[in-house]
Amino acid sequence: MQRVPILKLGDILIVSIQLDLEDQTVLALQEDLADSVVAHGARGVIIDITAVEIVDSFIGRMLATIAAMCRMLDAQTVVVGMRPAVAITLVELGLSLGGVRTALNLEKGVALLDHIRGATP
Amino acid sequence: MQRVPILKLGDILIVSIQLDLEDQTVLALQEDLADSVVAHGARGVIIDITAVEIVDSFIGRMLATIAAMCRMLDAQTVVVGMRPAVAITLVELGLSLGGVRTALNLEKGVALLDHIRGATP
Repeated sequence: MQRVPILKLGDILIVSIQLDLEDQTVLALQEDLADSVVAHGARGVIIDITAVEIVDSFIGRMLATIAAMCRMLDAQTVVVGMRPAVAITLVELGLSLGGVRTALNLEKGVALLDHIRGATP
Repeated sequence: MQRVPILKLGDILIVSIQLDLEDQTVLALQEDLADSVVAHGARGVIIDITAVEIVDSFIGRMLATIAAMCRMLDAQTVVVGMRPAVAITLVELGLSLGGVRTALNLEKGVALLDHIRGATP
C-alpha cells in the first residue's frame, strides 16, 4: 500500500492526491492527517485534487470525513484544484460536499485559509 | 498515462512525486514543468520526493534534467523530502545529483529559494 505524502508549509498541511484511492490508502491518509495536524499544530489542511479525474461517492465521503475530523482538531480544510468535469459529476450525483470548502487552486486555498483565520483568530 | 500535477504558490511551483515514474510520465512532467515555468513566470521549482522509496539512475537523471532545464528558464530547482534510505542508495550508486539542490522539507526548500533569490535578484 502506498501512502499519500503530507507536505507542511507554515501551519498549513498540503496533500496532493494522485493515487487511485483504495480503502486502505484512504484510512491511512485520514490517520496520517490527524496525526500531522496534532503533531505540527496545523491550522489548515489543503487537499489538491487536480489529478483526480473521477469522483464518486466514496471520494466525496472521504473529503467530508477529513474535513469533519480536522475541524475537531481545530483545523480548516479546503479542497482545491477541482476539474470542471468533476464539479459537474458531483452535482449530477447529488453530492454537495457538505462542510467542505473549495477554492480554485492552491494559492486561492491559502488565501481562503488566511481569511478564515483572520475572521476567527 | 497519468500526469503529475503541478501546484503553484506565488512564484514557486510545487511537484509532489507519488506515481511510479514511467518514461512517458517523466517526459510529460518535464514538458509540463517547462510550460508552467514560462506560463507563470516561476522563479523556483520544488520537487517533493517524500513518497519515493527507491531511487535509481533513471530518477537521478530526471531530477538533474529538470534542474538544468529550469535553470535555463531562470528558475531554481530544489528537491525536498528525500528519505534517509534514498540518500544512502544515491551515494552507494555514486549518483551525486550534480547541480540539484536539496532541502530537508518543503518549508526549508521555500526558505532556500528565498535565500537564493535574495542573493541573486
